[in-house]
Amino acid sequence: MRIEEDCVGKMEVPDKALYGIHALRAVGNFPITEELVHHKIIESYIQIKKAAAKTNCTANTLDVRKCNSIIQACDNLLKSGDLSGFITPAIQGGAGTSTNMNTNEVIANLAMKLDPNTFIHPNDDVNQSQSTNDTYPTAGKMAMLKLVPNLLSELERLVATFTNLGQKFAKTIKLGRTQLQDAVPTTYGKNFHAYASLFKRDINRIKHASEELKTISMGGTAIGTGMNASKYYQQHIVENINKYSKMNLKSDQDLIDAVQNTDHFVTFSAALKTLAVNLSKVSNDLRLLASGPQSGLNELRLPKRQAGSSIMPNKINPVIPEVVNQVAFEVIGFDATVTAASEAGQLELNAFEPIMFKSILTAEEHLTNAMETLIDNCLKDIDVNKEKCSDDVRKSAVTATILSPILGYVQTTQIIQESLKKKVSVKDILLNHNILDKTKIDELFAPKNLING
Amino acid sequence: MRIEEDCVGKMEVPDKALYGIHALRAVGNFPITEELVHHKIIESYIQIKKAAAKTNCTANTLDVRKCNSIIQACDNLLKSGDLSGFITPAIQGGAGTSTNMNTNEVIANLAMKLDPNTFIHPNDDVNQSQSTNDTYPTAGKMAMLKLVPNLLSELERLVATFTNLGQKFAKTIKLGRTQLQDAVPTTYGKNFHAYASLFKRDINRIKHASEELKTISMGGTAIGTGMNASKYYQQHIVENINKYSKMNLKSDQDLIDAVQNTDHFVTFSAALKTLAVNLSKVSNDLRLLASGPQSGLNELRLPKRQAGSSIMPNKINPVIPEVVNQVAFEVIGFDATVTAASEAGQLELNAFEPIMFKSILTAEEHLTNAMETLIDNCLKDIDVNKEKCSDDVRKSAVTATILSPILGYVQTTQIIQESLKKKVSVKDILLNHNILDKTKIDELFAPKNLING
Amino acid sequence: MRIEEDCVGKMEVPDKALYGIHALRAVGNFPITEELVHHKIIESYIQIKKAAAKTNCTANTLDVRKCNSIIQACDNLLKSGDLSGFITPAIQGGAGTSTNMNTNEVIANLAMKLDPNTFIHPNDDVNQSQSTNDTYPTAGKMAMLKLVPNLLSELERLVATFTNLGQKFAKTIKLGRTQLQDAVPTTYGKNFHAYASLFKRDINRIKHASEELKTISMGGTAIGTGMNASKYYQQHIVENINKYSKMNLKSDQDLIDAVQNTDHFVTFSAALKTLAVNLSKVSNDLRLLASGPQSGLNELRLPKRQAGSSIMPNKINPVIPEVVNQVAFEVIGFDATVTAASEAGQLELNAFEPIMFKSILTAEEHLTNAMETLIDNCLKDIDVNKEKCSDDVRKSAVTATILSPILGYVQTTQIIQESLKKKVSVKDILLNHNILDKTKIDELFAPKNLING
Amino acid sequence: MRIEEDCVGKMEVPDKALYGIHALRAVGNFPITEELVHHKIIESYIQIKKAAAKTNCTANTLDVRKCNSIIQACDNLLKSGDLSGFITPAIQGGAGTSTNMNTNEVIANLAMKLDPNTFIHPNDDVNQSQSTNDTYPTAGKMAMLKLVPNLLSELERLVATFTNLGQKFAKTIKLGRTQLQDAVPTTYGKNFHAYASLFKRDINRIKHASEELKTISMGGTAIGTGMNASKYYQQHIVENINKYSKMNLKSDQDLIDAVQNTDHFVTFSAALKTLAVNLSKVSNDLRLLASGPQSGLNELRLPKRQAGSSIMPNKINPVIPEVVNQVAFEVIGFDATVTAASEAGQLELNAFEPIMFKSILTAEEHLTNAMETLIDNCLKDIDVNKEKCSDDVRKSAVTATILSPILGYVQTTQIIQESLKKKVSVKDILLNHNILDKTKIDELFAPKNLING
Repeated sequence: MRIEEDCVGKMEVPDKALYGIHALRAVGNFPITEELVHHKIIESYIQIKKAAAKTNCTANTLDVRKCNSIIQACDNLLKSGDLSGFITPAIQGGAGTSTNMNTNEVIANLAMKLDPNTFIHPNDDVNQSQSTNDTYPTAGKMAMLKLVPNLLSELERLVATFTNLGQKFAKTIKLGRTQLQDAVPTTYGKNFHAYASLFKRDINRIKHASEELKTISMGGTAIGTGMNASKYYQQHIVENINKYSKMNLKSDQDLIDAVQNTDHFVTFSAALKTLAVNLSKVSNDLRLLASGPQSGLNELRLPKRQAGSSIMPNKINPVIPEVVNQVAFEVIGFDATVTAASEAGQLELNAFEPIMFKSILTAEEHLTNAMETLIDNCLKDIDVNKEKCSDDVRKSAVTATILSPILGYVQTTQIIQESLKKKVSVKDILLNHNILDKTKIDELFAPKNLING
Repeated sequence: MRIEEDCVGKMEVPDKALYGIHALRAVGNFPITEELVHHKIIESYIQIKKAAAKTNCTANTLDVRKCNSIIQACDNLLKSGDLSGFITPAIQGGAGTSTNMNTNEVIANLAMKLDPNTFIHPNDDVNQSQSTNDTYPTAGKMAMLKLVPNLLSELERLVATFTNLGQKFAKTIKLGRTQLQDAVPTTYGKNFHAYASLFKRDINRIKHASEELKTISMGGTAIGTGMNASKYYQQHIVENINKYSKMNLKSDQDLIDAVQNTDHFVTFSAALKTLAVNLSKVSNDLRLLASGPQSGLNELRLPKRQAGSSIMPNKINPVIPEVVNQVAFEVIGFDATVTAASEAGQLELNAFEPIMFKSILTAEEHLTNAMETLIDNCLKDIDVNKEKCSDDVRKSAVTATILSPILGYVQTTQIIQESLKKKVSVKDILLNHNILDKTKIDELFAPKNLING
Repeated sequence: MRIEEDCVGKMEVPDKALYGIHALRAVGNFPITEELVHHKIIESYIQIKKAAAKTNCTANTLDVRKCNSIIQACDNLLKSGDLSGFITPAIQGGAGTSTNMNTNEVIANLAMKLDPNTFIHPNDDVNQSQSTNDTYPTAGKMAMLKLVPNLLSELERLVATFTNLGQKFAKTIKLGRTQLQDAVPTTYGKNFHAYASLFKRDINRIKHASEELKTISMGGTAIGTGMNASKYYQQHIVENINKYSKMNLKSDQDLIDAVQNTDHFVTFSAALKTLAVNLSKVSNDLRLLASGPQSGLNELRLPKRQAGSSIMPNKINPVIPEVVNQVAFEVIGFDATVTAASEAGQLELNAFEPIMFKSILTAEEHLTNAMETLIDNCLKDIDVNKEKCSDDVRKSAVTATILSPILGYVQTTQIIQESLKKKVSVKDILLNHNILDKTKIDELFAPKNLING
Repeated sequence: MRIEEDCVGKMEVPDKALYGIHALRAVGNFPITEELVHHKIIESYIQIKKAAAKTNCTANTLDVRKCNSIIQACDNLLKSGDLSGFITPAIQGGAGTSTNMNTNEVIANLAMKLDPNTFIHPNDDVNQSQSTNDTYPTAGKMAMLKLVPNLLSELERLVATFTNLGQKFAKTIKLGRTQLQDAVPTTYGKNFHAYASLFKRDINRIKHASEELKTISMGGTAIGTGMNASKYYQQHIVENINKYSKMNLKSDQDLIDAVQNTDHFVTFSAALKTLAVNLSKVSNDLRLLASGPQSGLNELRLPKRQAGSSIMPNKINPVIPEVVNQVAFEVIGFDATVTAASEAGQLELNAFEPIMFKSILTAEEHLTNAMETLIDNCLKDIDVNKEKCSDDVRKSAVTATILSPILGYVQTTQIIQESLKKKVSVKDILLNHNILDKTKIDELFAPKNLING
């Protein structure tokens, strides 16, 4: 054990530990969850530290030799992906200070291993020109942004899948239903196409909301005034982060605002929630349209994924949409958490970013995974019970709506009532009462006409 | 116009106004909504003021003549129900002070009209031994409690209605559905009975949660220490409120706690939300079971309440359950509001009670009204499509679950698969393959056996 | 009384009523709230009906004479603003059908009064080429859009107000606080400027989210297929609505999607919620910075708006920010309602738009009003206690952070600890221990240097 | 690899795997999170299976030899705690079927290892008389109940800690604050005691809500009718579960209701949320009262737990209350998730229990952990800055409230205004203007009198 000291006192740290006293105190202070800080936050933090070292060195506030070993340490961590020195829990008090301190400690210790003759201080050197308050939200935003491509990729696959299904079932007529009651006909082509249109908007929303995340607070240090950061550093840190992370971040025009406000996260979380709501609506539809098979709507045939019951043999359930629903409910909850945490920010800082980050990063991952299983394990092999669908349309009295412009709302109402009451088809009533001739009837009730083209 | 003055300055007040400067300032300060403070809060406040006057008088801290005219003023207000002097808006800053001040002003002015020779001060006399901070939450709790009997009465009617429906359709066999897939049979009797069981719990929950509301903070004055209230007053105010309001309130053991904490409201709101969730689930079921009529489950026939479409003649929609759903969504939102407002309390007071009160009182009223229309405009005349229900059971392959204990899960699976594939009934497969004899089959598949009694 | 009939049966309607049987049934069916449908929805609906009549007439599907009297009726309603014939409640089942039917009835009846010799049918004529399912969401979007200018106008005033305050107090140094603990100095100029930056983003967000509302579903009729609407109508209805409403709406590319999905409302509601969260954060700050006056932070002096206590004389409370907080909590609840209602949409329609519309329109109005009172009754006359602010900075040990780049994190820690322990200023410690000379100290601790410019 | 088969088809399963095809399919179907089903659910499930085997055996529907090896397998699992055969993810579609199937598979395979000559079928034997739909909610309730004692234990420690602090600081006078403005005095004793009173209610609420969880649906099988369970089993399964789990569960009177409704979870989640709201309010108070130290309220001294800033040396932050706040926000989100999931239940089952269970179990654990760190790392060593507190009271003008009953609200207002304006103490004003004599003044303003006791 080695002894380390901070402003609180002394503490034993395992000899071989890359982390130091600050990280270790966090472990003791925040025994809430065993989940550690998301690896994308850590990765981003290392990129920030590397960029800061480089920028400080060019600004002549950090010794070249120190800079080199810090950069080497960062590169080694990024390359190896060995994050075992990062021990702070995902839910932590202290506004992310523990995560930042942990990063400083690991890099300083690694750098000193690389160059044992040069002392590198976690705060004076690795953390130079920085504060948790500008680096932590930056690392959080970077992590969120890094998860966006996978999310968008699945969303785009979802849109493509529904577009394909729309083409595949373009001619498959079916009854529409509004308020769960029989309505005028449509096709599965239009239906699936509408889902594609819906999720296209989510692509745009998530892209737009993620743009907000690209504006960062680097250079603001403790509260946005930039105290203890050189002008050179302030002007060049973002471009160096971009260089090392291959991202496209930009500096906020108002760093005081950037350090204290978390509305970007509320906005991004809301975009995720909207996607969740849409996924849930569509999953509800899929489950309902596949209901039965004998005594339900029985229109869709979802691929069989697993035995559905331990007691009812051969029961097959819509397990994939069901898991998507649950992810949606989870994400709705995450959004409530982010809302509450953002509202609780006070004065120059919001101390509750750790729970926002955990909630949003998990939402991104779970939504990505949910769409993946929805596409691959359900939509890809979905089929339509075409006979049931066309039978429904053929038997339906509500198709008589087509008569309304000709006969008026009142007479059409009477015809439909007679049809339902006497269980005679609308067509036959029209013929029997000589209301319209057969040619006209066939023309009106042709499927193509009923779906209006 | 008369001139009144407060610690902020002077202001003109209409000559005939019963309210005074404090109420008038509130109107200018809080132009959020035109909705005024709920009349049950005002009524309760008047009962509190009456009880306070009586108690202070007996404690010899209020002149008998003043007391009498205050009590007379209160009685006149309660009797006439004329609340035109109460002008403060439902959403107000100031932790309810404006409502209390308004009440003090109206009562003082009315009392002085009754006894023009005695000056009565809104604060020194009408508000004697009180603070907004102990009277306002008390008036809020009283108002909530006063709306409980109507709410419980509708809940009890709901339970009775479902119980009756359970008896009426006790023998009506139907297919069960789990995860929207055909499951083993049940009856509409059991179904409706289950709804009755569900809402019985809501009765208990609302009763239990409303018990919490009966503990009040009277006597605590500004922060719970009871400054400026006599010992006599503290010991007797609650019994006098009970006497005048015919309620059964009791004093909190810890008045500091009682003045500052609003967890009672969170708890009561949660009970309302749980009822809302349950109403929504049942409304969803009703709408789904009534879906069709031609191409849906078509089991339930909800009474026709109105034409359902401006374009589709004769379309009838489940409009009553739909409005219940919407009230449920509204109440879920109110609960989020109450949660946020309660969490925001600070130190010796929660300043955000006005929005909690508005949310909870509206929730109580809307839930009451929603249940009323659900019962009277929907459930009372609900009917079951018995043929469709028994046909579903008769044709269903999932009833073969009954074979599982005899043939095992594996063979039963095969039988069901064959039944669905070949569109041959399970019974016929059993006969054709000589798996069971007809007597045994008939015994097993007898409806009474399928629903297990 | 006159007798009217619909597919449900006959009903008495008051002779003079402009509404008819459909509206009257709604009143009986939905006794939830006395609040009626928002007047902006009604106004928009009338504009839609006018545009539809014009378009149908040009398409030769509506008689010119009928068209003229319908348009005249619409103009009379719009001009007089007399909406007494519109009686349907804000919370209604039926997906808005009652509101649409009510509008059809009122316009038909008015039109027939204008031209008694021509029969005009509410459905066949006024509702021609339309369904509730395309007109109701359109009217809802139009209503929301009509409330946006006022909302943005207050938001822009808010930004301007904070910008002005930022300039006014540009030189007023103050201590920053992170996690409620003393942090490095800043100015009230920077502070207010940061609030301006924050709300500028809300302007952009609300503008962006309201763009989504401009895409409408007109021409889709019942489920988006456009059944019973002529091609001419479909191609020209939106431009006619734009002409009569002076709006800038456009037709959705996918009307099936447009009729069934409500994600636009979730997105718009989320933008309102984000504004609410930001208003709440800033209101929290204002209240905290104005705390005291004797035993609080006592930095800000909010204008005195009303006596703050019925028991504590001369107490003044931050009542304006408090009411803003409450509106924020209310809007957070509305967003939960909109989320739940949108998720509940099924198949070709979401039947729960009425509660979404009520929630969103109320949110827009209350947020507008909340910002108005915040600006006019609080921010406009806000003052800063400059002495307290500069004293805090002068006495603060945390300003020693400026020493860190020179002396290092460790030694600076020790100096601060000594300062706090011995109650000797940091400057004196530096002098006493000969760590830095006076010139350097004065340069370092110059306010301008401490705030980094 | 061994080949297993279900109603979907064949699949390879690792030879040594205790799980089988059903569990393996779940892993492929639900790749949402790497978190597995909570170990307390698994443990409870094993207890259920053991009790079912025993009950079925006594009912003569399960062979004794099979029963013995099943029970032995269960005991081995419970004893060893080796849950490596349980591989289904915490978020899963299928209403928990995968978890139940996995349990059946593991136990059957283990039992057959113990007695290789007897074939044991996962469904026919281990799952006999059961369905996922009655066992899964039962296992979920058992798991929640098993986490309650730890939760209550920390809550009771929290109450004890605040009670002790209340006694320790019983005499420590301090200024009260309402709406963040100076109010009449109180003591830290009363303050801490009020927190104890608050959390005592949470103990009662959680106990009361957890009572609901004790009513279980065992014996209901698939939908509550109890199909395929013997009468003996139905009457004895609960007592056997109680015997093996040492719990005190009871059978629901209405098993149909018990299988389909999840309101118990909404209620329990709401009780957890209420605790969360209360913890957040108190954490907010602690952070605010400890603000400063130089330029804040500076009343409380929280123990120093870690260095608070990477840039500001010696900064100490209230990291423990901050982490408690974040857990509270998380739990508020979980409650939103549970609400949405419960509302989504349909007909005879709610398929969304997995996300409810995950949310509630995590909430219980995180709240337990949050209270533990709050007590041990913060409250235990909290101290009060007595001088600051008594100075605040001594200097405060608001203490003049005590004069109101003597001098009236109006004159007292004037005295306070003069005191604040001239910066002369209220006492001196009273003396200077000869309003009261010194003895009376000293009596009135004695701390004991000011706190009324």
